[in-house]
Amino acid sequence: MSDPELKRGFASDNNSGVHPAVMKELLRVNRGHVVGYGDDPFTGTARELIRKELGPETEVYFVFTGTGANVLGLAGVMRSWNSVITSHTAHIETDECGAPEKFAGCKVLSVDTPDGKLKPEMLARHMHGFDFEHHSQPKVISISQATEMGTVYTAGEVKALADYAHRNGLLLHMDGARIANAAVTLGVPFSEFTTDAGVDILSFGGTKNGMMYGEAICFLKPGLSEGFKYLRKQGMQLASKMRFISAQYIAYLSGGLWKECASHSNRMARELQRRLKEINGIKITQKVEANGVFVIMPDRVAALLSREYFFYPWNDQISEYRLMTSWDTTSDDVAQFADRLKNMMSDYR
Amino acid sequence: MSDPELKRGFASDNNSGVHPAVMKELLRVNRGHVVGYGDDPFTGTARELIRKELGPETEVYFVFTGTGANVLGLAGVMRSWNSVITSHTAHIETDECGAPEKFAGCKVLSVDTPDGKLKPEMLARHMHGFDFEHHSQPKVISISQATEMGTVYTAGEVKALADYAHRNGLLLHMDGARIANAAVTLGVPFSEFTTDAGVDILSFGGTKNGMMYGEAICFLKPGLSEGFKYLRKQGMQLASKMRFISAQYIAYLSGGLWKECASHSNRMARELQRRLKEINGIKITQKVEANGVFVIMPDRVAALLSREYFFYPWNDQISEYRLMTSWDTTSDDVAQFADRLKNMMSDYR
Amino acid sequence: MSDPELKRGFASDNNSGVHPAVMKELLRVNRGHVVGYGDDPFTGTARELIRKELGPETEVYFVFTGTGANVLGLAGVMRSWNSVITSHTAHIETDECGAPEKFAGCKVLSVDTPDGKLKPEMLARHMHGFDFEHHSQPKVISISQATEMGTVYTAGEVKALADYAHRNGLLLHMDGARIANAAVTLGVPFSEFTTDAGVDILSFGGTKNGMMYGEAICFLKPGLSEGFKYLRKQGMQLASKMRFISAQYIAYLSGGLWKECASHSNRMARELQRRLKEINGIKITQKVEANGVFVIMPDRVAALLSREYFFYPWNDQISEYRLMTSWDTTSDDVAQFADRLKNMMSDYR
Amino acid sequence: MSDPELKRGFASDNNSGVHPAVMKELLRVNRGHVVGYGDDPFTGTARELIRKELGPETEVYFVFTGTGANVLGLAGVMRSWNSVITSHTAHIETDECGAPEKFAGCKVLSVDTPDGKLKPEMLARHMHGFDFEHHSQPKVISISQATEMGTVYTAGEVKALADYAHRNGLLLHMDGARIANAAVTLGVPFSEFTTDAGVDILSFGGTKNGMMYGEAICFLKPGLSEGFKYLRKQGMQLASKMRFISAQYIAYLSGGLWKECASHSNRMARELQRRLKEINGIKITQKVEANGVFVIMPDRVAALLSREYFFYPWNDQISEYRLMTSWDTTSDDVAQFADRLKNMMSDYR
Repeated sequence: MSDPELKRGFASDNNSGVHPAVMKELLRVNRGHVVGYGDDPFTGTARELIRKELGPETEVYFVFTGTGANVLGLAGVMRSWNSVITSHTAHIETDECGAPEKFAGCKVLSVDTPDGKLKPEMLARHMHGFDFEHHSQPKVISISQATEMGTVYTAGEVKALADYAHRNGLLLHMDGARIANAAVTLGVPFSEFTTDAGVDILSFGGTKNGMMYGEAICFLKPGLSEGFKYLRKQGMQLASKMRFISAQYIAYLSGGLWKECASHSNRMARELQRRLKEINGIKITQKVEANGVFVIMPDRVAALLSREYFFYPWNDQISEYRLMTSWDTTSDDVAQFADRLKNMMSDYR
Repeated sequence: MSDPELKRGFASDNNSGVHPAVMKELLRVNRGHVVGYGDDPFTGTARELIRKELGPETEVYFVFTGTGANVLGLAGVMRSWNSVITSHTAHIETDECGAPEKFAGCKVLSVDTPDGKLKPEMLARHMHGFDFEHHSQPKVISISQATEMGTVYTAGEVKALADYAHRNGLLLHMDGARIANAAVTLGVPFSEFTTDAGVDILSFGGTKNGMMYGEAICFLKPGLSEGFKYLRKQGMQLASKMRFISAQYIAYLSGGLWKECASHSNRMARELQRRLKEINGIKITQKVEANGVFVIMPDRVAALLSREYFFYPWNDQISEYRLMTSWDTTSDDVAQFADRLKNMMSDYR
Repeated sequence: MSDPELKRGFASDNNSGVHPAVMKELLRVNRGHVVGYGDDPFTGTARELIRKELGPETEVYFVFTGTGANVLGLAGVMRSWNSVITSHTAHIETDECGAPEKFAGCKVLSVDTPDGKLKPEMLARHMHGFDFEHHSQPKVISISQATEMGTVYTAGEVKALADYAHRNGLLLHMDGARIANAAVTLGVPFSEFTTDAGVDILSFGGTKNGMMYGEAICFLKPGLSEGFKYLRKQGMQLASKMRFISAQYIAYLSGGLWKECASHSNRMARELQRRLKEINGIKITQKVEANGVFVIMPDRVAALLSREYFFYPWNDQISEYRLMTSWDTTSDDVAQFADRLKNMMSDYR
Repeated sequence: MSDPELKRGFASDNNSGVHPAVMKELLRVNRGHVVGYGDDPFTGTARELIRKELGPETEVYFVFTGTGANVLGLAGVMRSWNSVITSHTAHIETDECGAPEKFAGCKVLSVDTPDGKLKPEMLARHMHGFDFEHHSQPKVISISQATEMGTVYTAGEVKALADYAHRNGLLLHMDGARIANAAVTLGVPFSEFTTDAGVDILSFGGTKNGMMYGEAICFLKPGLSEGFKYLRKQGMQLASKMRFISAQYIAYLSGGLWKECASHSNRMARELQRRLKEINGIKITQKVEANGVFVIMPDRVAALLSREYFFYPWNDQISEYRLMTSWDTTSDDVAQFADRLKNMMSDYR
């Protein structure tokens, strides 16, 4: 195959490839025969590494995608008559094409937030109708860490939500598709803002941070995963050659790779923020706490710029665009992009 | 990580690893940025290669697993009030934990077969109740090629089923998890016993034959996939870094790798069959037309043997066991296994 | 409205109308205001009457239809990864258009029976794969009493199935759409072949025996109905003006109406059987133990006869037809039908 | 059965009983045999009467409940990857325990409204993501007529929403559980604010206005109901003795009963409004356009009053209560209730 010319960009952290260390581990585990579907030694090791991060009682189930992890994790602890409450910007609300409703049969209720972050006081509007058979019974609060808006919950904020959830008989779910970016920002171990803060179920992802595919559903407390192995299979998320998901987690967790990648990615986002701030007519709309930068720029300029770089519109109505950095974003990428935008802005008008 | 000692065996063709040529292509596409979710040039190439095999009108959707391919492919052409008719031994009937029913909401009706192969005359018992609102409406006939019993449909047999299906207003679905093994046995191009024989939807798999993960849902005729892209996403089967599924298909299809792997695997099965036949007290129960060998042996012997080799019981009631060969099975594997079994059988009694 | 001429027949016990005593009770409860959705005194009384029949621990949930009762009752005790095993002729398998699969997400597995009755030894073929995540987990055995073939389980036969189910960790469900016909045949109280025989969940119907609509899902043992009230609502089966379902059960159970109607109906079936037996060329194919008579007659005769009487073909391939009697079938209906058939048969050939 | 003392109230229009004219028709059709499941002459008549109101192309499917009508009507025109947009107060959003999500697998998106009425400009926030596979595809706008807040859309307002829907490739669904109350308020035929205004699917209810049970799903345009008969059966909403639903619609529509009942009920609501307005400390929060009156009163008073009359809290946070009148509400009911409240209010403080 002749190689196509590839355009770089800031469209998503999943536009990047796979970190070489992950590739190396994939090659390493590729030898001999092992039992399929997770009863292999590599998967045992990967589970152990996750338990080291999240606590010894963590039950780990590997699946393929972030959507799979969120939906199955929720379906594992909900019945069809339950509801999950989340932010309007949450992946489960806007980016999974109704997968939670389809698979869990449940209701997804959302709350408007300025920055993607739920706060206990925002939840009241959905916390009613308990024991009333006409009304879906609230069962889970779901947050994204980091959020889809590039913001990060502190451990204390997570704990406040977990306490609120538990006080009301609900569970707290965390979509951790970008959990590494959050951990790096907070500068604390994963456990501090997950297990220790009271999170019950976690989608522990790595694909957006240097892995190829695969996601870990983590039940952080005993008793939440009854029958779950059947649900994973029925949910079409049981990998036959599971060692190759496990290998990626081994590479990701055993030598600090997650931290290296996320630190870099976050740093690139801050660099991008710093440079964009200096451009006249560009407005940053969200705090840059992880690896996303949200900017308002003229649509005409955005159209021109997107011929050279991948990136997505976020909110058409206010000409807001989303820029994501990745483990493989370079300072040059950032500098060139900012320069191009700067030039276009000065040409503009 | 220190490396565990790995036991070899005949448990499943998914206990083997990934062919080096597939690994090489994974490394090759791992450069630069490409758009996620399939709008990348590698995925375009992979789709093209499949179209070359199956015909230019083929619509290709990559997913993660064989179960995902079967279930989504069926759900794409069925409504919840439809039924799919298949063999009692079919993966969709016995090995997907109810995924078709859960996701498509449909009914799966099965037919007993001696060898895993459906014949038109077997289907009559389920071909009734048309237009009767109390009864699930038959819509799809689903066959596995090669079957779960290691047998292979000829192109003519497929065609007879397709004609029967179409005459009755149904579609023909093929679960091609082991399609390469069938193609090698038949000695004809894929198209001859799929598109040209009238198959409507195909799960085109490679994971059991040297790939790592990923499966292609192929709609072989126009007009069958309306809205399917949403269903794939909602079915949690849309890969973000899709280029890595595509890369595998590129490796698999562009240089004849599929044929090399499947030919070897089939040859090993025939070799195993030949050797086992010579052992007193061992009975082969199915024709060996692909890479599976079904044998009856004393349970006590099987128990001893399974300490040294992975393999699965198939039918407890008649002491039947399944032995699968793989692209990486060696003649030594076969010889040593047969020798061990021979020794055990002579010790037995 | 001018009144249409109505043809009588043996098509189904639901072609008859509503018993006057039921109508009278509907009129009686139609006064004043009561809380909707079941918190009214009439519903309390109806539940009490059912508990009197089935035992004080029975939990009763009224729904609209037999399909609703079967599907929700099953869904209440199953998870989507479970299977229910039933006869090939069961309503849940052939006459509910896939409703169990759609709503419960489960697998329905069937067994061929000569007379609609399951026996423990028939179940073995589906009792495997326990704890194996690829396989739907058997959870419920479902029987119809009386069966769709007009046969009746003795209390001992029910008990044998219940014991078998419980020994294997399964539950026993009974579709009692025609339970009154069975009770009359057996000459014992309902409890003897339900609660006391080990049945766990019962669809207790009356619509086929003189009621207008409505069915009672009865959980016969504590602990089976957790969250069920939500499931009933989500299943679209919660009646707002529930007193009118309850009224029917009050009429049906408080004065022996069920017995009177079912006795009559069964008697008419036996009378029909006796008369048809005497006709040359007519063959009765099933024991007549409830209110159904299955006969083989020439298709040409059946076609002529069906211009005058409603009835349905049962098995096209052997020219088998189903004749159902009802609480309002008269001896004249039976005699005239038999006479017509006799005449047609003598003209035939 | 001894008769319990029944408390009157304003809890819901379904706390009332059945109008005598409906009862009379139930008795009238209760004769002889008719084919079950809708192929009877009474059902033909009922369908014809509805077509007279809504137009000759209307396809009518009777079901049991309002929830059943809404959910199946929506499921009939949506695929699981679609979304329906509705008011936050809509029955499908807050009072169906997630039935639309469970049965249709779809997403229900809501919009806050001050009075339960959608306006085109409110819908923009959900009208995006078209053709984007990650996002549920908007397919239906659903309004309630009258709304759950006791307000009524004018024909012009309905038309504006229908035009907006159609312009964007969506359909307009109307939950007409209280459609008669709306028609009376508007003083126009049903067709003027349904079929002629562009509504595509209508739940045409009568249970809240004098019927016993049953609801009509009306597809107002050809081509919307493909396969719907199977969906109704699979949705557990196919009545065996359907003539008794049909009879109610015959009574309801053939002699203007719907108008008589709804006119009375609306009048009682206005009377109640007038009297409550005069009480110091009581605030009416919504326009009284149908048969609901929403009032703010002190919780302590409400608690006392509810010992004597049934009624429900609506919004705890502002001490808002809902009072519904019915076809059988009397001027005395209204006067006595208002007097009691007046007395309690003067005692209060």
